[in-house]
Amino acid sequence: MTHPAPRTLLLGPPDLRALVEGVGLDVLMDELIQALTVALRELDESVLQVPKREGFQVVSEPRPSGVIGWMPALRRGDSLTVRVASSLPTNRGEAGLPTLVATHSVYDVKTGHLAAVMDGVFATALRTGAASAVASRYLASPDSRVLGLVGCGAQAVSQLHALSRVFRLEQVLVHDLDADAARSFVRRVEFLGLDVRPTPLPDLEVCADILCTATTVARGAGPVISGHALQPHAHVNAVGADQPGKAELPLALLRRSLVVPDFPAQARLEGECQQLHPDQIGPDLATVVQQPEEFQGWRERNTVFDSTGHALEDHVVTRLLLDHARRMGLGTLVALESLGGDPLDPYGLVRGDADARTGSPRRATGT
Amino acid sequence: MTHPAPRTLLLGPPDLRALVEGVGLDVLMDELIQALTVALRELDESVLQVPKREGFQVVSEPRPSGVIGWMPALRRGDSLTVRVASSLPTNRGEAGLPTLVATHSVYDVKTGHLAAVMDGVFATALRTGAASAVASRYLASPDSRVLGLVGCGAQAVSQLHALSRVFRLEQVLVHDLDADAARSFVRRVEFLGLDVRPTPLPDLEVCADILCTATTVARGAGPVISGHALQPHAHVNAVGADQPGKAELPLALLRRSLVVPDFPAQARLEGECQQLHPDQIGPDLATVVQQPEEFQGWRERNTVFDSTGHALEDHVVTRLLLDHARRMGLGTLVALESLGGDPLDPYGLVRGDADARTGSPRRATGT
Repeated sequence: MTHPAPRTLLLGPPDLRALVEGVGLDVLMDELIQALTVALRELDESVLQVPKREGFQVVSEPRPSGVIGWMPALRRGDSLTVRVASSLPTNRGEAGLPTLVATHSVYDVKTGHLAAVMDGVFATALRTGAASAVASRYLASPDSRVLGLVGCGAQAVSQLHALSRVFRLEQVLVHDLDADAARSFVRRVEFLGLDVRPTPLPDLEVCADILCTATTVARGAGPVISGHALQPHAHVNAVGADQPGKAELPLALLRRSLVVPDFPAQARLEGECQQLHPDQIGPDLATVVQQPEEFQGWRERNTVFDSTGHALEDHVVTRLLLDHARRMGLGTLVALESLGGDPLDPYGLVRGDADARTGSPRRATGT
Repeated sequence: MTHPAPRTLLLGPPDLRALVEGVGLDVLMDELIQALTVALRELDESVLQVPKREGFQVVSEPRPSGVIGWMPALRRGDSLTVRVASSLPTNRGEAGLPTLVATHSVYDVKTGHLAAVMDGVFATALRTGAASAVASRYLASPDSRVLGLVGCGAQAVSQLHALSRVFRLEQVLVHDLDADAARSFVRRVEFLGLDVRPTPLPDLEVCADILCTATTVARGAGPVISGHALQPHAHVNAVGADQPGKAELPLALLRRSLVVPDFPAQARLEGECQQLHPDQIGPDLATVVQQPEEFQGWRERNTVFDSTGHALEDHVVTRLLLDHARRMGLGTLVALESLGGDPLDPYGLVRGDADARTGSPRRATGT
């Protein structure tokens, strides 16, 4: 008896473009913010298991070093999502590539089959933006109107997009050590129709109700803001820290703020929480989403979302994108694994035995 | 300035078949045994970094539980190979799939780009066979003529193939609790032209110069051989243990043997070495390959290769297969990541900006 070989769904840029054209970028972000909120509210570690990410430092002296790592999330009886992501500040110059390059692979845990491989560059931007939107909804003042962005790279685009879906932003103040990046940012987010202006850092710090730091600051070279003259209610989404030794915020700010990590075990090693004693670290984001009334008072005080990137977010965004793609018939199906022949013969397919049995050749790409 | 988006090479069953047709299965195995020997001899942890595998238990009561896990190997400045593999004894019945399903993904560590995704089912069989061949060449009697295989599943096929490339096998005795598997094994390895006969376990144990155990024995249900009447020079390749609690060999045999793990940190948690105190565990395979004269005396005594699966093997087999594929022009190139547009704009490609700039649409699959 032969079984049809299971296939792998590939989702690349043209599929994502068709998906975004069909669903709408705003609707997609709204759905993701909602799905992430629900996932955090219903987080059950007996159903969804998320070990902290592991990885390797990639040294590229004399410039800031990067990391390449893997983040797995297992939904019991369903799927294993493995995100492999690298954060390499050298990418922009030499290769014309984003700092953050990632792919998401989804395995069927019932069989071990690779069910899907998709782009993680767009997905990372979406989910990192959505995480800040969820955190800010629970921790920032609901009347926040001025957003300050420190670091105008790729992640800043979706930070702004996501926060614009949750707050009525009247002004967006942006700052980057690279003045070209700050200027080009205005063009990159033109589609949002907001008032976006490059601003000196001290002015940005004074005016912002919500700040996002999303920089490639080198290990030991932070902080990237002074934190002296922030609004008493300012909320900060610190997005950039992703490796030991890297931090964006001043210690004094962290000490006077409620610091909410996305994933405490990881944030203590790689996030702003590296700078704090364990008893100075606040609840994780899931706890805040589950018990909002407990932390409501903090909306008028300084708060920090320590966003290191949680595999829960990867799982949620991957699922959302795959659900839309399957519904819309997007993507390409390929046969990748040597499956479909005699399960006891790993040489059967490569020697052509299975074809001899079924009488029909198989092609690598979907029909 | 726009750069061409890097692409991902996919290697599936038809590509592997063309590769095997072109190179020859025997030559491929010989090359792999040689490449693995060289890799073990030259193993330098400052160049190739291999953390032990991590994973999740997949419970499928009442049958033996399985595992799904990931094994990364980083070659500094070159590539990260991530093997995701599951060992699920339920696969054979329900889905008609091999117990072991795996894929190998190769990332360029200079950019984080996913350079290749390939089948890991055939690759697993090849490399697990090659590892036993290397271990047996250094630990078994060079005059070994009788091979005993306990467990006649997929891995037994390549154990036999690999060992037949290193020893002049005159007789192959095979045993499986499933008599159908033992019978079908004779057909599956017909291409080797060897004298292969299903044999009662006690006879197999008495006669074999080299044994391979490659079973799906449940945790706590071993051992799968008695070990009482083995030849005084018998060498055993224990291939099946891959999770805590699973073991194939009797403790008395382990105690009187030189036990050589592929990867000590992993073997102590998942292999036969679980049964031993640390001071009862011998050198790892790399040490034996590097200092063969130190262990030559053991070729006439009982030895055990505790094969849990080393990411070094995955790295070597992946590299060998990809080198052949690239040389032969095999595989399919696809664009998977959202790359090639403005590296600072994660929304550029999905909104179609990059196409507007370059004036040419991109297709998902290679030209």
